[in-house]
Parts: sequence; C-alpha cells; structure tokens
Amino acid sequence: MTPKKSWTIGVDVMGASHSPADLLTALSKVPFPSGVNIVILGPPDLLVPPLFSLYPAQDSIFMTDHPVSAIKKKKDSSMLLGLRLLKQKQIDAFVSAGNTGALVLGAKIILSTLPKIHRPALLSLIPTKKKAVAVLDLGANIDCKTHHLIQFALLASAYLQTKGNSHPRIGLLNIGEESMKGTSVLRQAYQKLESIENAPFSFVGNIEGQSVFDGDVDALITDGFTGNVFLKTAEGITSLILDQLHAILPKETIAAYEAQLTELQRYLYCSEYSGALLIGLKGIVIKCHGYSTPEGFVSGVKGAISLVLEQFMDRFQKILESYCFTRFDQV
Amino acid sequence: MTPKKSWTIGVDVMGASHSPADLLTALSKVPFPSGVNIVILGPPDLLVPPLFSLYPAQDSIFMTDHPVSAIKKKKDSSMLLGLRLLKQKQIDAFVSAGNTGALVLGAKIILSTLPKIHRPALLSLIPTKKKAVAVLDLGANIDCKTHHLIQFALLASAYLQTKGNSHPRIGLLNIGEESMKGTSVLRQAYQKLESIENAPFSFVGNIEGQSVFDGDVDALITDGFTGNVFLKTAEGITSLILDQLHAILPKETIAAYEAQLTELQRYLYCSEYSGALLIGLKGIVIKCHGYSTPEGFVSGVKGAISLVLEQFMDRFQKILESYCFTRFDQV
Repeated sequence: MTPKKSWTIGVDVMGASHSPADLLTALSKVPFPSGVNIVILGPPDLLVPPLFSLYPAQDSIFMTDHPVSAIKKKKDSSMLLGLRLLKQKQIDAFVSAGNTGALVLGAKIILSTLPKIHRPALLSLIPTKKKAVAVLDLGANIDCKTHHLIQFALLASAYLQTKGNSHPRIGLLNIGEESMKGTSVLRQAYQKLESIENAPFSFVGNIEGQSVFDGDVDALITDGFTGNVFLKTAEGITSLILDQLHAILPKETIAAYEAQLTELQRYLYCSEYSGALLIGLKGIVIKCHGYSTPEGFVSGVKGAISLVLEQFMDRFQKILESYCFTRFDQV
Repeated sequence: MTPKKSWTIGVDVMGASHSPADLLTALSKVPFPSGVNIVILGPPDLLVPPLFSLYPAQDSIFMTDHPVSAIKKKKDSSMLLGLRLLKQKQIDAFVSAGNTGALVLGAKIILSTLPKIHRPALLSLIPTKKKAVAVLDLGANIDCKTHHLIQFALLASAYLQTKGNSHPRIGLLNIGEESMKGTSVLRQAYQKLESIENAPFSFVGNIEGQSVFDGDVDALITDGFTGNVFLKTAEGITSLILDQLHAILPKETIAAYEAQLTELQRYLYCSEYSGALLIGLKGIVIKCHGYSTPEGFVSGVKGAISLVLEQFMDRFQKILESYCFTRFDQV
C-alpha cells in the first residue's frame, strides 16, 4: 500500500457560541501543512476562502437542542453531515464545537464504536506538575457502569501507547486512596483493575483530585459527570487565581512577565486549546468547547491534523485489538 | 435565662496525619477568648499545658479503619468520647481531624440529626471572585437522593440566614445550565427546587464548575462525592499554579510580594484553614482535613469558637424550624 499523500479534515463551524464567520476567519489565518485539505461544514451562504471548500449544511444543531430529537430531526445538520462524511471516509477526521450530547450520540450511531467498546469517551490532556495526564471521560457519559470504566482504561492505555508510553500508569479518580472509597461502581472498578493479570498498563489505584496534579499517573479514569466537574472546576479556579494575581502584582511586573503568564494560562487551559478526542469510535472526532475561543477552535483542528498525520487511527486500533479482551471480560 | 458566660470546646487530637503532640503545640500558641475552655481528647500520657484540660482516651480511630466497625468496636476512642460529651452538653462544640466516615456516622448515631433532616452534610466556605460561597456536601454522603439535596439546600439557607443573608441564592453543581443536564437525581432536584413556592431562598438553577468561582451564588448544593472531587481539584490546581508562578517570577518579585501571595494561598486554601462544619446535627461538629497543617487545625478550633460565641446552634435551629417542611416534602 502506498502511503496516503493527502488528507481531508471536516470542520463543523455551526452550533458553537462563536459564529461560523468568526471561526472561519480564525481558521483562514493559519497555515496548514501541505497535503491537508479543510472542508468546512457550514451554512450554504458562508463565504469560504479559496483554500478551503464548503460542504453546505441546511440545518444546525443548537446547544439547547435535546440530543435524541436533534439526531432524529436534523439529518441535514452540519454535525450529522460531517459524521456521515467521516463514516464514508470522505474525510479523515471531524472537528466540532457543537452540542456535546448530540455529537456523542450521533457519532455512536453513525460511526459506531470499536469492537468490544460500548461507549466513546472524551479524552483530553490536563497539565500537572510533571507530564500532562490523559483524563477520560470528560463528559460523554453521565452514568457509567464498572465495565465502562474498565473500557476507558483500555482506551487510555492504547492511546498512550500510540504516544510511545509502553506501560502507562492508570488511576481512578476517587475521594480517597483506599480501595473501599467512593461509589460501588468505583469500588468494583478498583477490584477489577487490580485483578487483571499481565495488563498492558499498570493500575496505580485511586487518585484524589489534588494528587492528580502531582503528575504521578499517565491516565485518570472517571465517569463523564465527575470528569466534567473536575475539568470545569480546574478552569474556574485557574481563572480566579489569575484574576487575583493581576490584583496583587503591579502592572509593570505583569507586563514584564506577560509572555510567561500568557504561556502559563494557555498551558492551564490546554483542554480548551486542544479540544477533546472522542475516543473509542471508528474514526477521529475532536470536540472543542462550545464556548471555546476561535483560537481554541483552531487548536482543535490542528490536533485533528496531528492525529491524522501520525496515522493515529490505524495504530490505535491495532494496539487495542492486541489486548486480549476476554481477559478483561472475565475479571 | 442569663446568658452563658463560659464555653467549652472539645478538641480531638488523635487520628489525624499530624501527631497529638504537634497539634497540641500549635493550639497552645494561640490566645483563645476569655471564657472559652479547651478540653483535649487525646492519649492518657499526653502532656497538656495548664491552660487546657485533658480528657484521656484509651483508643483512637485511624484513617484506615472502616467507619462501621470503628463505631462498633472503638467506644473509648477520642472521637466517640468527644461526640458523647457534646451529646451530654459537657462541651459546646467538637473539633476533629480524624476519619471522616467514622465522624459522620458516629455523629449521626450519637448526636442524631435535626428534625426532618435525614443526613448531615459537610459545609465549607470556598473563595470566589466576589464573596465566598457555602458548598455542601463536601464528602459526608457519597450517594445522595433528591430529597437529601433539597434538605442540603434548606440547611444552606438557614446557615446563610444566621450570617445575615436574608434570602440566599442557591444553585446546584451540575455540568450544564439547562434543567435537563446531569444525573436523574439532579434533574429531579432542579424541578423540585424550582417549584417550591415562597422558598426562604432563591433557586438560581444549575451552576457549572467554572462559574462557581464567579461568585454569583451564595450556596452550592452537591452530593458528597462530587463535592469532594470539586474541593480537592480546586486545591490541586491551586498548588500547581502557585508552583508554576514560583518558576516564572524571579525570586525578588516573589519575596517583594510574599505577604500578598501567602495571603492569596491562605485564601485559596480556606477550606483547609477553617475546616468544614458538619451541618444538620444536634450540635456543632467541625471536621478538619485529615492532612490539615497544625495551623489549619487551629483555624478549625477558632471556627468552632466563633460559632459557639455567636450562639449559632440556637439561631440556626430556630430558622430551620421556621421553614414549613411540609411544603418541601410535597414538592
């Protein structure tokens, strides 16, 4: 097989808090690698610069739409069109900042999940005092059963192995280190993860919200409700602290270290800047924050391009298939 | 009735990560208001300075003890002794940094909850960009039903009214603003809180983890699992940011603004510094972090003294009784 020489990224510019035109303006300022084509899924009257092509969408899914009814009724929305293009391999990755529930449900129905994976999860890299930690699920699944958490651990493990981490350390987000802590789902997940023999990862037990940031774990497994609270709380307190710093430090000091402070801010808001990978599907789907800045949205598109260029999907699937799933089903 | 002229605070110095001697040393450096007596619940051989008295405890509940078996088997532990002294009104408030599960269960059994309140909750004030917000439950109840969350809202409302806030704004910690967001328990709680007529508080809907810190709500209601993750995540990211700042800013700048930065740090770690109030019980119980610094522990004791001096318990109970509970049961 000759290696592919051109790649196409589908970008949904509808349904986010910024307008399609604003998102497009931000995108058109960025030089993309040669061989990468950008297909914009947007309103038919959107003026698209010559570098991109437009795939017109007659409908848009709003943040306030109920996911189930949106999937049923808005077949011609930019989001569902994009997912269908991905399914048909007309695009190599899809990026959207639209309604999370609709994207997760639509992706599950249209693309379907990888073998033995029941649900996709939102994965993002969160900064710590050491290396960034991959956290999932950040909001795709509100209620999770034990086997979903085990599957998230396998997805995280395979993801990190594509990034060169041969034996990732994986922890469970919980409210105490002891195995008896937390909900019954978490207690069972602890027991199961602990009892897997020859696991492709090393299970390091429960990790508390404050210890996550010490960076002693490579992936953190949680249900989508808790993961979403975790992510948004981290963002909220970051904003509070940066505000307070501006009040404490004199303007000249802030000005003198502006570059470093902005860098810190970007580092802390990295999940917003890079978007989250909806992992576990038969295709690359990147979800950007609904209230993401146009700059953050562009970062999400760049993230999708990186994954496509490094042939993430093929490598990821091969690693995941190499895991002997019967072993995980039995525990 | 002549006003009481002396008050006694029971302080459990066992079962925390710092030794009884370390906690006692920190306590003995602090001038307490006149009329306030400190009774230390600690090991029989503990040398106690003449200002305090020692109530010897033959046993101690460890962090690793299972709450149920600890309550059954360790009747002579400092924690259960303290709770019994509070029940018998030999002390006016009780402070402990021991095993949270054992303290919550022990307090529920020995002191019992206030009428119409099924479970106590851990309440602490968390800093925001404006006024601090009262958050509960921070870890007393892992699994909560809808009616527990409604009761937490009533406890928060009465608590804030004792602090002079006549009509507190109360929100639910959730992963989106819309009423349909989150778990089924949260969706039901939203509906119930919204439908209460003439509530003593104003229900402002769902609050996301990042919006909490904008300070537009006076109390935030959540189950103990999510609340605990929220609290610890906020602490973790605070520690990360302060670390990063030390790396970015030159030593001289840090030194020049040391007082303000230390103040900011204390402000951000306020829950650790003031401990949490185990609210909803027939008595004042303050829970300090197990890994609280001796200085933080002292702050918890000071918090207990403030509540006792302002006759919190009487005022709180009167306000809570004034709420027509049948109204809340029916919704």
